[in-house]
Amino acid sequence: MIFKTIAVFVLATITSVTSFSQTSPPAVVEDFKPSTLNQPGQEYPQVNSQGYARFRVKAPKADSVRVSLGLGGKGGTLLTKGEEGFWTGTTAGPMDEGFHYYNVTIDGGKFNDPGALNYYGSVRWESGIEIPAHDQDFYALKEVSHGNVQQVLFPSKSTNTSRRAFVYTPPGYSTDKSKKYPVLYLQHGWGEDETAWSNQGHANLIMDNMIAEGKIKPFIIVMTYGMTNEVKWGKMKEFKIDPFQTVLVDELIPYVDANFRTLANRDNRAMAGLSMGGMETKTITLNKPDVFGYYGLLSGGVYAPDDLSGKAKPKLVFISCGSKERPDGVNKSATDLKAAGYNAVSYVSEKTGHEFQTWRRSLHEMAPLLFK
Amino acid sequence: MIFKTIAVFVLATITSVTSFSQTSPPAVVEDFKPSTLNQPGQEYPQVNSQGYARFRVKAPKADSVRVSLGLGGKGGTLLTKGEEGFWTGTTAGPMDEGFHYYNVTIDGGKFNDPGALNYYGSVRWESGIEIPAHDQDFYALKEVSHGNVQQVLFPSKSTNTSRRAFVYTPPGYSTDKSKKYPVLYLQHGWGEDETAWSNQGHANLIMDNMIAEGKIKPFIIVMTYGMTNEVKWGKMKEFKIDPFQTVLVDELIPYVDANFRTLANRDNRAMAGLSMGGMETKTITLNKPDVFGYYGLLSGGVYAPDDLSGKAKPKLVFISCGSKERPDGVNKSATDLKAAGYNAVSYVSEKTGHEFQTWRRSLHEMAPLLFK
Repeated sequence: MIFKTIAVFVLATITSVTSFSQTSPPAVVEDFKPSTLNQPGQEYPQVNSQGYARFRVKAPKADSVRVSLGLGGKGGTLLTKGEEGFWTGTTAGPMDEGFHYYNVTIDGGKFNDPGALNYYGSVRWESGIEIPAHDQDFYALKEVSHGNVQQVLFPSKSTNTSRRAFVYTPPGYSTDKSKKYPVLYLQHGWGEDETAWSNQGHANLIMDNMIAEGKIKPFIIVMTYGMTNEVKWGKMKEFKIDPFQTVLVDELIPYVDANFRTLANRDNRAMAGLSMGGMETKTITLNKPDVFGYYGLLSGGVYAPDDLSGKAKPKLVFISCGSKERPDGVNKSATDLKAAGYNAVSYVSEKTGHEFQTWRRSLHEMAPLLFK
Repeated sequence: MIFKTIAVFVLATITSVTSFSQTSPPAVVEDFKPSTLNQPGQEYPQVNSQGYARFRVKAPKADSVRVSLGLGGKGGTLLTKGEEGFWTGTTAGPMDEGFHYYNVTIDGGKFNDPGALNYYGSVRWESGIEIPAHDQDFYALKEVSHGNVQQVLFPSKSTNTSRRAFVYTPPGYSTDKSKKYPVLYLQHGWGEDETAWSNQGHANLIMDNMIAEGKIKPFIIVMTYGMTNEVKWGKMKEFKIDPFQTVLVDELIPYVDANFRTLANRDNRAMAGLSMGGMETKTITLNKPDVFGYYGLLSGGVYAPDDLSGKAKPKLVFISCGSKERPDGVNKSATDLKAAGYNAVSYVSEKTGHEFQTWRRSLHEMAPLLFK
């Protein structure tokens, strides 16, 4: 199968909405604990060892309270009213491991769960919940040296404003003052912004841990807003890459190279993105093959050998998705690229869909392959 | 009048809840515009040129929707149901200039306004709204060189974890690689955290603008969580300073001095805080007079000459509050300190209470006096 880039991530999103297992669910184990993404001191939402999520929301005079997370396309989880004005409910089955966005519908209006922290997705700040994953160690906060995440405001003539980016600098950056680093430009998906890779993705902790274990050589990561939300969901074909490409290539990269100790050349510069950020990565790397040497599409389409032929050869093409998306297309792309003489690697995240656990894992798989 | 530290900021909070003028309100001018703190693309909440706030929240099947902002102590602003399930309402009078926290009660449950961005206050992420101020220029995002706000995770043996701090480094920090800077340690208030001074306070923009205008010499600002929320509101007397003092003095300061280019001595180190952060500042500067050379209490109590006598003399004591708080106590403190031979400055923010506009202005007044 050959996928067009746009089609891949739209289809992937739709299919991944069904995030329950299809077998009949086991008995619910009563070992629920507060989600690690709760607001300070909040007991709900909770998760159990099987991956069920339980919600509890106070709304004494409400007629109906519904959580969007649950049976995809079937209205989520309906809460029932109990004592003291609290509405409670548990998902009908276990959720996929990792991070999920959700919201709460109170009497027909969409709000957030006051118990949970908020994360920018779907062009709004949504509630977030974390289902503990068997492999959560790789993005855990550990007693290792930590890099910094810097908010920078860089000048953008093309958009006539200062724009925000976050720059991960690895441990040692501030003390080893002569060392220069490669740079990965890493994009979020539609509905998200430049906060996603740090907040939802824990990109900084993933890097800190891999650097501490000696699995990768330190590099810088730059995350900025991809202007993805200027089109509505479902109108992706109307998205024009030019304004963002100008911001990224003509404004942000020169700013980063002037203000951080970078190795400012193609072979030390990568671009990757998730979902619509993958579409941006594909388009911009093909438009500007002399700017980036490493390409990564995370649930964000594929390259065909024809896309790359006649251009400066990438040092690596990394293509990934969740097993509940379209892994065949991802694997075939890497196979075809390798057959055509390219250094291509595919990765499929087991038992995850179009969600951040896929992308955390993808970053973890991709990082050791960069800047070799 | 002499105030005890704790009494000052608690009383100040209570009095400042009445944030309306006491005269009969003028006719409402229909020039409402979206608040600058709305989520992307959101039309409501809105504010008009007089400082009225107008809310619009969708909850088609709700029985009552109330916004906490409005007549303090009288239930805020009750919204009325209109067409298409939208509830709307306007404050009964103009609000004070600047930033305000609020939330929305839907059928008895406390939620946030889906139109507004969220800010951590009252030990929860609250909705925020910005009433344009006549002097808003000093914290506006302008076309000037911008400093960075860095998230650092520093090791803390005393609390057995990595703790978060934000470090503002001024423009030029990354390029002029030999220059060293003084440091201000700047604390939030009760119910807030280390995000407050950047998000609500725009501390970074205040600094960028003053540096661009040549009004101050550049310095670093460090903001971390003051552990203030480990006591409940109203139980401030139970707060023990020791755990936070250990984190700040024995762990964070050495980390900052090791990882940033600081002038690591008393005469180049200041501590200031707002509200309960002022109480922390007073206690810690008196406990550790050799560590800090400049002290600032923003709506957070006062020093008496007796507090300071027999200790290393501070280079400056800065004391401020809003005119709707207790300015007499603040002014008297500075007068008494000056009479006793100390370099003391008081500042009263006109027509503001125990809110962030007072503290933005206080930082703006205090910064040029530091590190002289």
